[in-house]
Amino acid sequence: MNNKVYFTPGPSELYPTVPQHMQEAMQQKIGSISHRSKQFQEIYASAVTGLRTLLQLPDNYEVLFVASATEVWERAIQNNVRKESFHLVNGSFSKRFYETAQELGRKAQQHEVPFGQGFHVENIEIPESAELIALIQNETSSGACIPVEQIHRFKEKAAPDALIYVDAVSSLPYPAFDFSKVDSVYFSVQKCFGLPAGLGVWLVNERCVAKAEAILAEGHSIGSYHMLPSLLEKAQANQTVETPNVLNIYLLSKVLEDMNSKSIETIRRETDSKAAQIYTYLESSNIFSPAVENPDHRSKTTIVANSTMPASEVNKHLAAFDMQVGSGYGKYKESQIRIANFPAHSEVQVVQLLTKLAELES
Amino acid sequence: MNNKVYFTPGPSELYPTVPQHMQEAMQQKIGSISHRSKQFQEIYASAVTGLRTLLQLPDNYEVLFVASATEVWERAIQNNVRKESFHLVNGSFSKRFYETAQELGRKAQQHEVPFGQGFHVENIEIPESAELIALIQNETSSGACIPVEQIHRFKEKAAPDALIYVDAVSSLPYPAFDFSKVDSVYFSVQKCFGLPAGLGVWLVNERCVAKAEAILAEGHSIGSYHMLPSLLEKAQANQTVETPNVLNIYLLSKVLEDMNSKSIETIRRETDSKAAQIYTYLESSNIFSPAVENPDHRSKTTIVANSTMPASEVNKHLAAFDMQVGSGYGKYKESQIRIANFPAHSEVQVVQLLTKLAELES
Repeated sequence: MNNKVYFTPGPSELYPTVPQHMQEAMQQKIGSISHRSKQFQEIYASAVTGLRTLLQLPDNYEVLFVASATEVWERAIQNNVRKESFHLVNGSFSKRFYETAQELGRKAQQHEVPFGQGFHVENIEIPESAELIALIQNETSSGACIPVEQIHRFKEKAAPDALIYVDAVSSLPYPAFDFSKVDSVYFSVQKCFGLPAGLGVWLVNERCVAKAEAILAEGHSIGSYHMLPSLLEKAQANQTVETPNVLNIYLLSKVLEDMNSKSIETIRRETDSKAAQIYTYLESSNIFSPAVENPDHRSKTTIVANSTMPASEVNKHLAAFDMQVGSGYGKYKESQIRIANFPAHSEVQVVQLLTKLAELES
Repeated sequence: MNNKVYFTPGPSELYPTVPQHMQEAMQQKIGSISHRSKQFQEIYASAVTGLRTLLQLPDNYEVLFVASATEVWERAIQNNVRKESFHLVNGSFSKRFYETAQELGRKAQQHEVPFGQGFHVENIEIPESAELIALIQNETSSGACIPVEQIHRFKEKAAPDALIYVDAVSSLPYPAFDFSKVDSVYFSVQKCFGLPAGLGVWLVNERCVAKAEAILAEGHSIGSYHMLPSLLEKAQANQTVETPNVLNIYLLSKVLEDMNSKSIETIRRETDSKAAQIYTYLESSNIFSPAVENPDHRSKTTIVANSTMPASEVNKHLAAFDMQVGSGYGKYKESQIRIANFPAHSEVQVVQLLTKLAELES
């Protein structure tokens, strides 16, 4: 039996109801049902409805299931960019989206600021020719975020035809987007939704679909089985093109029921409250300090701290109390820690973590 | 509690040990561990070692994890075909690989025989210019197979540089391939491995990797995160590029331990024995008859029968006894049934199924 509480930034602590839903899934033999059955269509529909409710997603958006958020980067470029994309880059994941566009033969431009910094929207010049604007609402590697009201300002800054893409991989459902101000938002289930990894969710509006159809009609390839028109056709029948991760779609539908019972307002309020406690501690610590200087640019869901103690030492101490935080990303592996503040993490658990971190101070 | 036994051709009955492995996975919190942790690397290595043992896979092959066998079709074309591929087509899945090549802008040629028929290797002309030869060892839609010794003959028929790809999605580990006679074999875990869906396994030799590197070196795109060189680099570190379906890789490692304990010889012998019983029954039935005429071309793992009773009626009868077979594929939905004969299906279960099917005769 493993009793550790995982504050790692994803995979992370499972949502508390997941073990029970998994047991039910095994008893109901969800792993054996056909992905073309009515039973699967109902599970699929339940997951989509649950997500629409939780995120207050308007009707002009479609919910598409792919294998990972990493896959979304590739599909976004294939389906929505003829020639040129523009990327805000301030960490490893935003950089990777930029590189994906290049690997797929597109001209990619970036507005880059140092790792751990946020962006000042007024300083960003968006090229008129950029067809897709890649924003990173929450950079999981550095803990920097773009506040939602800043995200909403890009619509008027960009060319009218440009598509605004928002990476909310490790923050959704926390950020309350105005979906009329963006065109696509995507996330992974192993972050704030507290599920096992192996499913990416891609939200697209009708403008993304129309762009893919236009590129295809011009005779260009937009991929194969996961081109947007194919994804959409199956989604509208509550199915997927390939045999998907059925078990995860089932678990997502169940966790969404739980989250909707709790209400998105409560989830957001609790996230704010736990984040405030974590940052207050980090500000007062002799070992740790918030890695993102500007308080407005500090993520509420993936909280990164500089650490004068190697991250491996911090985790060695925490392991004795069945807790673990994330190490820093890449070259910050030992000099930073990352603390996930997801809906799965209770206030009691956060207080316990901060108490044990504080013991290192003495 | 669902006590149904699923003879559907995938997703299908889970391997009998899966519920217990899943319970252990939840207790060990496998869904929460980092995909960059030593613990994950050990799980990954265990799955690969288990597969190498079971399949007697030589060292010049790499084991790569992707999201589905459907994804393999796309990656194979992107990474291994500059211009032209050649496909043996005799059902819906082999057709789909052929169409994938076209969607990705390649010249695809096919040797097509009617649905439900096998191939006569001596009649097949392979174009000299074909870079990838797509064979379908087992066509899940129609129940037709290519015997392994016929598969092995393609190496000398094809141009020396051509890569022989084998779809064994719904048959592996049953077919005993000589891996020196082919270049790539792929499968899905929700068929004969008895796992929940959401993981594809792509076996490639060094010739596939070299071809991808050559195309990339020429300045052509071979995809992004799942291009062969990137998949390979991570695989050699017992990791994946993206956050993968960790839980399924864990379950695969455990089921492979169980299968290796049982031995591949026993699994193959039991598969033969159960298949013989099923075909013997179908030959004697007044309602059902084997859909594939030539006995040499009949699959041992996905057995398809023509049915004078609508498939939905057959399943209505079986449902009362907690059993289900697959309906026919596509336009054969009601006029055929498909019976999965996977390692998860015990001889006792097969006998019970045949007994209940026989009751329909009276």
